[in-house]
Amino acid sequence: MHTLTRERADALRPVTMERNWNVYAEGSCVISCGRTKVLCTATVEDKVPPFLRGQGKGWVTAEYSLLPRSTAVRVPRDSAKGRVNGRSQEIQRLIGRSLRAAVDLDALGERCITLDCDVIQADGGTRTASITGAYVALVDALRWLRGQGAFEKLPLKSSLAAVSVGKVRGQLLLDLCYEEDSTAEVDFNVVMNGQGDFIEVQGTGEGGVFSREEMAAMLDLASSGIHELMALQRRTLRWDDAEAR
Amino acid sequence: MHTLTRERADALRPVTMERNWNVYAEGSCVISCGRTKVLCTATVEDKVPPFLRGQGKGWVTAEYSLLPRSTAVRVPRDSAKGRVNGRSQEIQRLIGRSLRAAVDLDALGERCITLDCDVIQADGGTRTASITGAYVALVDALRWLRGQGAFEKLPLKSSLAAVSVGKVRGQLLLDLCYEEDSTAEVDFNVVMNGQGDFIEVQGTGEGGVFSREEMAAMLDLASSGIHELMALQRRTLRWDDAEAR
Amino acid sequence: MHTLTRERADALRPVTMERNWNVYAEGSCVISCGRTKVLCTATVEDKVPPFLRGQGKGWVTAEYSLLPRSTAVRVPRDSAKGRVNGRSQEIQRLIGRSLRAAVDLDALGERCITLDCDVIQADGGTRTASITGAYVALVDALRWLRGQGAFEKLPLKSSLAAVSVGKVRGQLLLDLCYEEDSTAEVDFNVVMNGQGDFIEVQGTGEGGVFSREEMAAMLDLASSGIHELMALQRRTLRWDDAEAR
Amino acid sequence: MHTLTRERADALRPVTMERNWNVYAEGSCVISCGRTKVLCTATVEDKVPPFLRGQGKGWVTAEYSLLPRSTAVRVPRDSAKGRVNGRSQEIQRLIGRSLRAAVDLDALGERCITLDCDVIQADGGTRTASITGAYVALVDALRWLRGQGAFEKLPLKSSLAAVSVGKVRGQLLLDLCYEEDSTAEVDFNVVMNGQGDFIEVQGTGEGGVFSREEMAAMLDLASSGIHELMALQRRTLRWDDAEAR
Amino acid sequence: MHTLTRERADALRPVTMERNWNVYAEGSCVISCGRTKVLCTATVEDKVPPFLRGQGKGWVTAEYSLLPRSTAVRVPRDSAKGRVNGRSQEIQRLIGRSLRAAVDLDALGERCITLDCDVIQADGGTRTASITGAYVALVDALRWLRGQGAFEKLPLKSSLAAVSVGKVRGQLLLDLCYEEDSTAEVDFNVVMNGQGDFIEVQGTGEGGVFSREEMAAMLDLASSGIHELMALQRRTLRWDDAEAR
Amino acid sequence: MHTLTRERADALRPVTMERNWNVYAEGSCVISCGRTKVLCTATVEDKVPPFLRGQGKGWVTAEYSLLPRSTAVRVPRDSAKGRVNGRSQEIQRLIGRSLRAAVDLDALGERCITLDCDVIQADGGTRTASITGAYVALVDALRWLRGQGAFEKLPLKSSLAAVSVGKVRGQLLLDLCYEEDSTAEVDFNVVMNGQGDFIEVQGTGEGGVFSREEMAAMLDLASSGIHELMALQRRTLRWDDAEAR
Repeated sequence: MHTLTRERADALRPVTMERNWNVYAEGSCVISCGRTKVLCTATVEDKVPPFLRGQGKGWVTAEYSLLPRSTAVRVPRDSAKGRVNGRSQEIQRLIGRSLRAAVDLDALGERCITLDCDVIQADGGTRTASITGAYVALVDALRWLRGQGAFEKLPLKSSLAAVSVGKVRGQLLLDLCYEEDSTAEVDFNVVMNGQGDFIEVQGTGEGGVFSREEMAAMLDLASSGIHELMALQRRTLRWDDAEAR
Repeated sequence: MHTLTRERADALRPVTMERNWNVYAEGSCVISCGRTKVLCTATVEDKVPPFLRGQGKGWVTAEYSLLPRSTAVRVPRDSAKGRVNGRSQEIQRLIGRSLRAAVDLDALGERCITLDCDVIQADGGTRTASITGAYVALVDALRWLRGQGAFEKLPLKSSLAAVSVGKVRGQLLLDLCYEEDSTAEVDFNVVMNGQGDFIEVQGTGEGGVFSREEMAAMLDLASSGIHELMALQRRTLRWDDAEAR
Repeated sequence: MHTLTRERADALRPVTMERNWNVYAEGSCVISCGRTKVLCTATVEDKVPPFLRGQGKGWVTAEYSLLPRSTAVRVPRDSAKGRVNGRSQEIQRLIGRSLRAAVDLDALGERCITLDCDVIQADGGTRTASITGAYVALVDALRWLRGQGAFEKLPLKSSLAAVSVGKVRGQLLLDLCYEEDSTAEVDFNVVMNGQGDFIEVQGTGEGGVFSREEMAAMLDLASSGIHELMALQRRTLRWDDAEAR
Repeated sequence: MHTLTRERADALRPVTMERNWNVYAEGSCVISCGRTKVLCTATVEDKVPPFLRGQGKGWVTAEYSLLPRSTAVRVPRDSAKGRVNGRSQEIQRLIGRSLRAAVDLDALGERCITLDCDVIQADGGTRTASITGAYVALVDALRWLRGQGAFEKLPLKSSLAAVSVGKVRGQLLLDLCYEEDSTAEVDFNVVMNGQGDFIEVQGTGEGGVFSREEMAAMLDLASSGIHELMALQRRTLRWDDAEAR
Repeated sequence: MHTLTRERADALRPVTMERNWNVYAEGSCVISCGRTKVLCTATVEDKVPPFLRGQGKGWVTAEYSLLPRSTAVRVPRDSAKGRVNGRSQEIQRLIGRSLRAAVDLDALGERCITLDCDVIQADGGTRTASITGAYVALVDALRWLRGQGAFEKLPLKSSLAAVSVGKVRGQLLLDLCYEEDSTAEVDFNVVMNGQGDFIEVQGTGEGGVFSREEMAAMLDLASSGIHELMALQRRTLRWDDAEAR
Repeated sequence: MHTLTRERADALRPVTMERNWNVYAEGSCVISCGRTKVLCTATVEDKVPPFLRGQGKGWVTAEYSLLPRSTAVRVPRDSAKGRVNGRSQEIQRLIGRSLRAAVDLDALGERCITLDCDVIQADGGTRTASITGAYVALVDALRWLRGQGAFEKLPLKSSLAAVSVGKVRGQLLLDLCYEEDSTAEVDFNVVMNGQGDFIEVQGTGEGGVFSREEMAAMLDLASSGIHELMALQRRTLRWDDAEAR
């Protein structure tokens, strides 16, 4: 892979978000962060998982998968091996958990929204791009439900976006590409809401460790990147102040 | 789904082919036929299946999969069920067989090209669109190999494209969309090469039957559609006369 | 394997059909075509697949499997690998589709008939032998249902049989054995009904291609073979003119 | 099912054994015991399981499976469920263990013989019929190996046969059919060799229990039945005194 | 592994049973026989398998599993391979069958008791230790149900214990450890009730065979060992004469 | 479940660690934290995963599983469902990653240590207890290797322990039990080394969110708990200053 030379350590890679690319889904978004590209679709179904039946409460869940040639070396499909691999399961649990934190499940009513995050091209940060893009598809699906008369006010508790930060050869970097991520000593995935609170913080010493001070600096970096992503989400969604909280 | 009103029974739906949308694959093409959209990527690997090892001969194979929300109703992923479903297996066997018919496997040398056909949006004709689009990705992969010095002349025996035809309420139609296909009495998938020969003909009476005369008329329709698809393949590939046979 | 020398290119291999070999099944038939031998049993159950429930309509389905030593080299059981292999799934889908074309599913009523086609010995043409033999077992199962008072007239739309044809070293041959099939340039499986219409035509260029003229000649060959197989089906079933349409 | 009225409690059901019904297998036998019918084929392969490699020793193993409509009510295939069911695994382990007891594995040399026991019709006693029939197929496979020059003397330690006995409503019965077996208080499967020694005794109180005296009486019954089965094996195999020990 | 030198051929290894080690289970027991150690827990659920629904009858079943490092060489988990291995299935069927023989399933009422037998350390005799220990857990679960008012009298038909015996280098030994078991010519697992009747006898010639006389001597040995195990079960359970039959 | 009333919010539950309970494993530890109890065994094997072969480098990996009745309601085994569930996979990836951070894989040499963490009783904090207990088993396995002459100095980069903290009804609590964990608004799992650095921080808003200040307070709590756990690890291991770094 070609050598990436960053101009700035604290800048996001070029980001784009495109809505409504799928004619069937109740909401959809293609998000690109650098060369990473993820298709996110939202499917609304009038049924909830068994453990929620009859409680009048809704559910939001996610599935995450890499297309075989989304990576430099082709990866076999999970279906060929007869099971979802551990990494994918871990990521889709993270995405679902994060999105549920942004939704008022009681106000959603007894229905389930499934966010499918299919990675077309993977160059680092696929899980955080999935969360950020899936949020856009989710909002459109909620608007579709509102159009169906399911509720008057979107059952949203907050906006939501995610980004990665890391320590690479001693330097703190925002929004790592694959090459940076694979050589990082420390890797953080951070999910925040529009009020500036944290929803999920996952910091891992990949061969390295991190101090309290480094953590603080990385969370600052993440926070500024997430702020920028939320601005783009609002523009993409043509966010109406009457609509948002 | 909205009602489709055809102007002409013997016309293809609008077709587009776009190359090189994937930065990692040795060849790639997104093909759209009406609302059907398929991502085709070609992966070159320096190994062949066990039954071919040591014979100096190559292999071409395909995998086919629907993204969960490629259809009006979301379909669960194969990986969630632990196996590739029967329909997908049947289709990927057809795609692989058709592509192998167009390639000189001896001249390819001991390497394998895998064509991944991932359906983003399905509105009928996904298997024939996969074959037509995968051929474009395959040619680019062969050019990439030529660039690597694997051979001087592309190991191609012919060009290749496919289309569906059917009998719907007694009328013969070219290039069926899902709504037409699901009400068809007879459904044909036809794969042809550039010399006008047939590589595969699969005709099925879905509730209906067909006579020898009807078959002839349907093959005529298919033949004209395939002719048109091949013209677009050539333009897409910027096909060089010196390159083709 | 010993060399097969055909006397005639347009003759079926010796065929036998034997009914009622299984004491439990509602219908059963062992069909032999040359050295190919398939056990077909029909099971009647008072339930239909979920997508048909409550519609008063019936269903016909098939399962196909090779016994491990039905072939020259023992093949591992699907169960040992935890899934039905792709080829078997494709074949059982073909068998089920063909049989459904011969049955009036509305008149059958809300019940399902499963045709199990277990190949005891495989020497080419196992899928077409399965269709031809399964039809005999199916008719006996329908007679059994008639005996139970399910209906007065057998819910059959037509008779049904199938055969293979192929082009081997340039020559067109009827009813290929394994050795011929594995060297064939072109391979056709043809399913027809008693009115001379086609129900399924699957033609594949296995390394070769075929023209419109060759297709016509192969369909003629298939048609004459199927005619002969239907005569044997009628004798085997002691077909009563009052019974048939 | 029709009521079975036994004339004698200590008689075997009618038994037949037929060799060489399969043209590919190195040995094969169809055994019928009453309405129970099992196809046994022996496959010789020049490889042994990993734990035996390089020791110059052979292996004998078995697989057991019910065809779907071998029983009064159709049973789904293991492959449809993605695994071999527990009962089948237990039975095939018993068959393999019993056959290995009759073979001199050192003298067999580094090769594996697989006995496939496929039950066509099941009316009780399928596991014991499988052992008795598989032994016949095994001997023919060993003769085939001798014909290939693998050894001069068949590597057999003894002959081998098996039968079931049970206590049904207080009465001891030899060779239970399904109806008797399913109402038995006690059920024994007994495997013996030609010297009158036991190779396997499996006695189970199915709702009942058994005393030492009852066990002795059941083993006497089994012993006489096995004696008779061995006589038929010898006739079927045209057993040559020079060949046997 | 170190060499075991037995002082006596007819003695059990040191046995201990400990109740109530699990705070959640309705009954639980850790049984040690020499270095073999098995955790047995009983779970009571108010539902029965489908084939028993609505009959007012109960069910007792078992699951058996080796922890990965219960053995000298680590064994991969079944879950990693996607299926329960054959040996485990055979053993859990034996455990369940044996326990059901000791319980009055009609008096149990429509509920299911599952006995989980997880082997922590395996040094031979794990299946018989599982039966003996699971019986203790089962009695405590029945007492728990009696405490809940399910019945007044424990629905027990008898006490129950199991032991192995074998012939090792010509000598008959009680309660084999792994090293003895793996070199045994003959191996018996014997399950008996408190009345001295047999519930299950499984005798296998592992490379050897056995005569009627040897079987009698082995059953005598087993009988004395089981007598001793039952005395310890009674002490462990603080068995109240009013409680037992 | 009974109501837990904590005396102090910042105290660990009672902890015990017991070494060498397994006679086969190269290292083993049973750790109890309140009612949570985990068996940890270390297995040393002279092979590494394929991606590390031939590099002279070692590997440390973990497997995590709940025994079926480790919980208030019995959970079915993964093997019965044919796959490892997502939660278990995520946890075992965390355990393995954390342990690798404490080991000098280059100095370990080309061998793999597998830590099996089998939860006998689950009352919250099973993943952190697994890490803390597995570290003890790992050190004993490394000592065993040193005893075999694999190296002179234990290839350890640091000590390692883990604990959970959470916000429950607004209050910060150390070392949550299941009941506290299931009602927590925020849940942190923290892994630290002996130098006071972080190896992994996973903070999740389960229905709630958390600010930068709350995070700091929770990390303080975790840090003090981990300090205490490390003291107990040293006593359990009879840690020799000459041995440790």
